[in-house]
Amino acid sequence: MSEQSAVTVIGLGPMGRALASTFAGADLRSTVWNRTPGRDHELVEQGAIRARSAEEAVAASDLTVVCVVDYDAADSVLRRDAVTDALKGRTVVNLTADTPGRARGTAAWAADHGIRYLDGVIMTPAVTIGTPDAVFIHSGPKDLYRKHLPVLEALGGAHTHLGEDIGRAAAYDIALLDIFWTAMAGYAHALAVAKAEGITARELAPFATGIGAILPPIFEELAEGVDNGNFSGEGNPITSAASSMAHIIHTSEAHGIDAGVMRAAEGLARRVIGMGNGTDGFIRVTELLAETTDVGR
Amino acid sequence: MSEQSAVTVIGLGPMGRALASTFAGADLRSTVWNRTPGRDHELVEQGAIRARSAEEAVAASDLTVVCVVDYDAADSVLRRDAVTDALKGRTVVNLTADTPGRARGTAAWAADHGIRYLDGVIMTPAVTIGTPDAVFIHSGPKDLYRKHLPVLEALGGAHTHLGEDIGRAAAYDIALLDIFWTAMAGYAHALAVAKAEGITARELAPFATGIGAILPPIFEELAEGVDNGNFSGEGNPITSAASSMAHIIHTSEAHGIDAGVMRAAEGLARRVIGMGNGTDGFIRVTELLAETTDVGR
Repeated sequence: MSEQSAVTVIGLGPMGRALASTFAGADLRSTVWNRTPGRDHELVEQGAIRARSAEEAVAASDLTVVCVVDYDAADSVLRRDAVTDALKGRTVVNLTADTPGRARGTAAWAADHGIRYLDGVIMTPAVTIGTPDAVFIHSGPKDLYRKHLPVLEALGGAHTHLGEDIGRAAAYDIALLDIFWTAMAGYAHALAVAKAEGITARELAPFATGIGAILPPIFEELAEGVDNGNFSGEGNPITSAASSMAHIIHTSEAHGIDAGVMRAAEGLARRVIGMGNGTDGFIRVTELLAETTDVGR
Repeated sequence: MSEQSAVTVIGLGPMGRALASTFAGADLRSTVWNRTPGRDHELVEQGAIRARSAEEAVAASDLTVVCVVDYDAADSVLRRDAVTDALKGRTVVNLTADTPGRARGTAAWAADHGIRYLDGVIMTPAVTIGTPDAVFIHSGPKDLYRKHLPVLEALGGAHTHLGEDIGRAAAYDIALLDIFWTAMAGYAHALAVAKAEGITARELAPFATGIGAILPPIFEELAEGVDNGNFSGEGNPITSAASSMAHIIHTSEAHGIDAGVMRAAEGLARRVIGMGNGTDGFIRVTELLAETTDVGR
């Protein structure tokens, strides 16, 4: 990596520090800045350069990596005139997690100000940064991605470019977090119901991990059907799923445990059944939800 | 297996047929009966004995395995006087899925009528019956379980006795189905959001299976904390989970896609935060839900 092998990191929370520390250890001229001072001592010891201001930080490198709590926080740094001016002709890779809409809005702002822009998401925890376990997804102009990939690859792990649509990485992130947090809500609820039935979390865990283990092949199998509009419920119709859900709700509420999450899920299943699709599988819910979607974006 | 090696199967849906067919192939004198006739032709060819009535069926064996759609269906067969009388002194293993409360109610009825009773759940699909992949969980009197285990083991797979509390197998089942169906609701919703963002199910699937794969170790790790009352959110506080959930809801609803399941989950997270536990992990939701629980059963 030659003269462009300089990188600025804006945002020194746990993830930002992991990024900056990995860059500093990778023989890159790395400059760091954080809104709240005092987070960069270890990084400076590792060879990072402490910028006195955000504008000084972004002016120090052709590439600035931003990793803050959300796009409001990113905007409050990047959209100050001095910083925006300093970024002109340079590249921002925004690894802040937010919505696809915010990513698109930031791309439009960047284009208006002559700033090159890539959006990305880090799919793995801070401890994975710099290791083969890190997973990064990116979207935006492919040539710009190719140009900065050598520096980004200093972060280790797998980097995937998902497409030119700048919102694509955030959209993947949202969909995957949707699966993760919904599943976690199910687990948290199941542990409460189990507890009310005198079953400890550790007693349930070996069986719960068994449920977790069967999900990936089911996800794979259903994906093909969904893309082809095939929601066949052979052997497991949505009527049977709704019946199981009703048992869960009944058992939960009999113990005084809120079953709002499952009630919402059951409501979707009942709507599919009410529309005459009771022999379809539960995944028919995807089509029900998607039918209300606006066309395009 | 000696003279007690006779078994009756009540209920010849896909699962009941799989049970009866496996028993018939295992050198057991097996008798079958189904409310709706005509489902036993193949079984009779395999050597099963067709009973002319439910009372004749249960009288033919010391052990009757029941596998019907729910306990209402089971009751409508077992609680007819002629059948109840014929069952006196014999054993029923009820592999019908329903709630722990229904299992306990059936055990009370059985005790009142001098019928021995075990409750069980089949955790795997009908195709696994007779193979090492089948998973059965049982609860009720341990000695009764031991007595009939040799016949039950003819069904293949793993059999686990979870305890004497007759509702325990159903309680495990409910908790595990809670995890499964909530996760499936998350997946179905994620596919709808992905579709609205121009991402196909097959494009998302490899990443979705990655999410599925990280759940089992997370389940294991959190279980220990929950049992010890340790909900520490080190590195991932519930405030951060709630923020992700808000992004998911916003993105979903911006496309006109119902986000009721995630709204309910976010509501739980917000309640934990509102109670001053924002630095705890999301799993603190378990405690919030369990706090409203009635003590004991």
